[in-house]
Amino acid sequence: MYNFSFYNPVKILFGKGQIAQISAEIPPDRKILLTYGGGSIKRNGVYDQVVQALAGRNFLEFGGIEPNPRLETLMQAVELVRRENIDFLLAVGGGSVLDGTKFIAVAVPFQGDPWDILAKHSPVHEAVPMGTVLTLPATGSEMNTNAVVTKWSTKEKLYFSSPLVFPKFSVLDPETTYSLPPRQIGNGIVDAFTHVAEQYLTFSNNAPLQDRMAEAILSTLIEEGPKTVANPTDYSARANVMWCTTMALNGLIGVGVPQDWATHMIGHELTALHDLDHAQTLAIVLPSLLAHQRSQKAEKLLQYADRVWGITSGTAEERMDQAIERTRQFFESVGVATRLSAYGLSGASIPTIVDRLEQRGMFPLGERKDVTAPVVEKILTACV
Amino acid sequence: MYNFSFYNPVKILFGKGQIAQISAEIPPDRKILLTYGGGSIKRNGVYDQVVQALAGRNFLEFGGIEPNPRLETLMQAVELVRRENIDFLLAVGGGSVLDGTKFIAVAVPFQGDPWDILAKHSPVHEAVPMGTVLTLPATGSEMNTNAVVTKWSTKEKLYFSSPLVFPKFSVLDPETTYSLPPRQIGNGIVDAFTHVAEQYLTFSNNAPLQDRMAEAILSTLIEEGPKTVANPTDYSARANVMWCTTMALNGLIGVGVPQDWATHMIGHELTALHDLDHAQTLAIVLPSLLAHQRSQKAEKLLQYADRVWGITSGTAEERMDQAIERTRQFFESVGVATRLSAYGLSGASIPTIVDRLEQRGMFPLGERKDVTAPVVEKILTACV
Repeated sequence: MYNFSFYNPVKILFGKGQIAQISAEIPPDRKILLTYGGGSIKRNGVYDQVVQALAGRNFLEFGGIEPNPRLETLMQAVELVRRENIDFLLAVGGGSVLDGTKFIAVAVPFQGDPWDILAKHSPVHEAVPMGTVLTLPATGSEMNTNAVVTKWSTKEKLYFSSPLVFPKFSVLDPETTYSLPPRQIGNGIVDAFTHVAEQYLTFSNNAPLQDRMAEAILSTLIEEGPKTVANPTDYSARANVMWCTTMALNGLIGVGVPQDWATHMIGHELTALHDLDHAQTLAIVLPSLLAHQRSQKAEKLLQYADRVWGITSGTAEERMDQAIERTRQFFESVGVATRLSAYGLSGASIPTIVDRLEQRGMFPLGERKDVTAPVVEKILTACV
Repeated sequence: MYNFSFYNPVKILFGKGQIAQISAEIPPDRKILLTYGGGSIKRNGVYDQVVQALAGRNFLEFGGIEPNPRLETLMQAVELVRRENIDFLLAVGGGSVLDGTKFIAVAVPFQGDPWDILAKHSPVHEAVPMGTVLTLPATGSEMNTNAVVTKWSTKEKLYFSSPLVFPKFSVLDPETTYSLPPRQIGNGIVDAFTHVAEQYLTFSNNAPLQDRMAEAILSTLIEEGPKTVANPTDYSARANVMWCTTMALNGLIGVGVPQDWATHMIGHELTALHDLDHAQTLAIVLPSLLAHQRSQKAEKLLQYADRVWGITSGTAEERMDQAIERTRQFFESVGVATRLSAYGLSGASIPTIVDRLEQRGMFPLGERKDVTAPVVEKILTACV
C-alpha cells in the first residue's frame, strides 16, 4: 500500500424526507443561491420541498445549468453571486449542477479569468461554501472535491479539484430519483461502475481491503442496478444504488492504490466533440481499454473475473475475455450502448481526439503511464 | 436501509514516516500537551520521532495513561491543561491513550464533575482540539467520536461519544507497531473483528453495500491477521490490519443498518470486574452470544458462513455452528483465548455482572432488544 492522506468532511444526510433538514445545516445569516438545471426539480416536487425547507431564509435562484455544465452559463451565476453578495450556494440536481456550482464557488472570489482554474490549473485559495441536494446518483460529486466544466465556445471539457469545494452537506433522498428517465439511471450505474474500475482494475500493491471494498461496490451495482432500472420506485434498490455511486468516488476506495483514469480522459474528449452523455463515453471506452491493457492488468482482471463475476474456469485469457464481455453486457443491460456505431459515430474523429489529448499534455495516461497516443488510437478504433 | 447521517472529518495520514507531518497539522500558535501511556513510545523510537516533528513548538508532556484509562489519572492531566492554558492535545499511543485524551479534551472546559459526562450523559458543548499518533491498531478511536474510561475507585467502565472529540488528524504509521507484543496485536485483530460483527451480524435490512464492506474487513483481517502475528515487520500485513481496524469503527459500515453492541456492553463489565483486556472479553462473549442468538441472527449468520468462511454445505444449523466455531478458532489462532476458564475465572461473578448491567439500565440489549438479564446469564454461563 502506498502512503496516503484521506480527508472527507462532507456530512451526508441520507434517506426519505431528509431535504427538510437543510435549513439547519446552513448558518442562519447566509444569503443563499439555489442552483439547478433544466427544471425537472419543479416537475417532480423536489423544488417545492427545498423551498419549503428554506422558509424564512433569504435566497435567490439560478436555473438552467445544462448537462456537461457550460462555462458561459456558469459565469452568469458568478456575476449574480458577486452582485447580490450571496454567501452560500445550494446545488439541487445531478452531477452537472453540483459540478457547475463548485465552479461558481471558486470563480466568485477568483482574481482573473476563472477558466484558468481548469485550463492552467491556477490555484484557488477561497470558495463560497456550498451544500447539495442530489437528485441523480452518478458522479459522486456530492462527496468529493472534483468538478468538470465545458467551455462551449472551444468545445473543451476540463476538470479541477480543490478541498475548498467539499460540500458542507449533501442530502441523498432516494425518492427524489423516482422520476428520473431510465437513460439517466443507466448512465449513473455505468458512471459509478467505471469510477470503481479506474481505481481497482490496475495492478496489485497489496491493498486487499481497498480491493474488497471496490468489489463490494461493483457486486452491489450488478445486483441492485437492474432492479432499479426495472422498478423505479423500489426504494431499497434506489437507495443502494445511490449509496454505491457516492462511495464509488468519495476517495475511500482509492486510498493507497494505483489509479488509471485513462477511460475518463478519453471519454471527456468524446463528450466534448460529440455531446455524448458522460456515461455513454465510459461504456464505450472501458471494455476496449481493458481488452487492450489486459496483459498489464492481468492479475486484477483475473481477480475481478473470479470475485465479481464468479468466473473460475477456463484459461487466464478466457477468463479475462469473459469478464470484459460480462462488463459490456452489464452496461448494455442497464441501457447504455457500448459501441461508437450505436451512437451513429464512425470513428472519423479518432485522430482529432488523439491530437487534443496530445495538445493538453495528457500522455502518457494510465496507472503505468503506458497509454500513449498510438494506444488511444487502437483502443478507440476497437470501440467502433 | 434506515435513514442515516454520516459525518467524519478526521484527516488520516497513513504510512511510514508520516509522523514528520504533524507540526503542519497543528495551528502554529497552539500550546500542546503530548499525552502517552506507559512509556513504550520512548523505547520504540516513536517518542523521538514526535519530539523531532514538534521541534520549535511549545509543548508539555503527560505520560502514564494506563490501559483502560482511569478517571483518577486523567483528572491530573485535566488540572495540568487548565493550569498551563494548553489548547491542543496530541495523543500518542493506542486506544486507551486516545480515549483518555478525548476525555481530557471534554473535561477541561466542563462545568461540574466531568465523570457526569459518562455516568449521567451530561451534554458537552466544547472540547480542546486534539490530534493522534496511533501506535496500536485496535479500537478505531483514531477516527471516531467514542471514548471509554474507567473509574477505578468504583470499578465502573463507561463510555461517551461526541463529535467534538473527532481528532483533527490521526497518523497511522504501520512501522510504529513493529515492536508491539503479540498479545496486543492479537487483541487488536479481535477488537476490530468484533466491531464489525456488532454492526453486521444482526438482521438484514436491505443494505447490501454495508454488508459487503463489513465482509471485506472481516475477510481481510482473517487473511492478513495471522501474517502480521507471524511476522511483526511485514509492512504490508501491518498496514492492512491497521487500515482494517480504523475502517471497522469509523461509522461507515454501520450507516443505515441495525447494530448490536451487546457483546461490548457485557465485555466492559468483565474488564471492570476482572481487569481483562478489552479484546479478551470480546473473544469470550462473542461466540457464545452468536450461538445463543442464532435463530434471530440466522439470515446474517448464514451469509457470514458463506461469504466470509466459504461454508456452503450442511444444514443451516450446521453451517451456523461451523461459522461460530471458525470465529472462535480464529480468535484463538491470533492468541486470544475464548473461555473464561482460560483466564482463571469460574463464572462466579456472573450474577454481579448481570446486576451491574441491570443497575445501569442497560437491558434489554441487542439489535432486537431481546438480550435481557436471563439471556446474559445464559450467554455468560456458556462462556465458562
